[in-house]
Amino acid sequence: MKQVIIVNESLKLPKGKLAAQVAHAAVQGFINASTGAKSRWLKAGMPKVVLRAESENELFELESRASSDGLPVALIRDAGHTVVKPGTVTCLAIGPAEDEAIDNITGTMKLVR
Amino acid sequence: MKQVIIVNESLKLPKGKLAAQVAHAAVQGFINASTGAKSRWLKAGMPKVVLRAESENELFELESRASSDGLPVALIRDAGHTVVKPGTVTCLAIGPAEDEAIDNITGTMKLVR
Repeated sequence: MKQVIIVNESLKLPKGKLAAQVAHAAVQGFINASTGAKSRWLKAGMPKVVLRAESENELFELESRASSDGLPVALIRDAGHTVVKPGTVTCLAIGPAEDEAIDNITGTMKLVR
Repeated sequence: MKQVIIVNESLKLPKGKLAAQVAHAAVQGFINASTGAKSRWLKAGMPKVVLRAESENELFELESRASSDGLPVALIRDAGHTVVKPGTVTCLAIGPAEDEAIDNITGTMKLVR
């Protein structure tokens, strides 16, 4: 079990802002998961991986594929009070779900360093 | 209602690692909150603030004060597979809880930029 959070690196968010957006996606993805998936993920120690996308469109495509596969998703739009324009898509959580189901979608993507 | 996540800036974590640790704290803090606090925070749009601490000891002190005040807390220790030593305290979530109750503890602290 794991959860991946993919961030829109084209926004070049400052690290505190990025962390808050990733946390937002993680909590919403958790809420959107089934009771069974929640429980298995918690038992596994809540593994999380933060990956990079190059654009908002890449996040939309990933969301569409993950939803088609029946995985819980959470696409995060920023309220835009501070750093970015209102409604800007900052990141996407996929899972918690089985590793293999997630790797089918994000397996070739790079980590955020 | 809000949740604050305070990070141990002395570790100088790379931004992807930092984001994952903050997300970990946010989810665990959410799980630790009461049903009423969860619900009020979700209705408010899950406000989150990421603040900086200069040391592990500062996180321990904040955890102690927040616990004494009856607030949900989540102190995160890294498994240490990659960037830091196993058991290193990376961050602390306080809340979701009432703004005022959290500001009593972290009101003078600085944002992570």
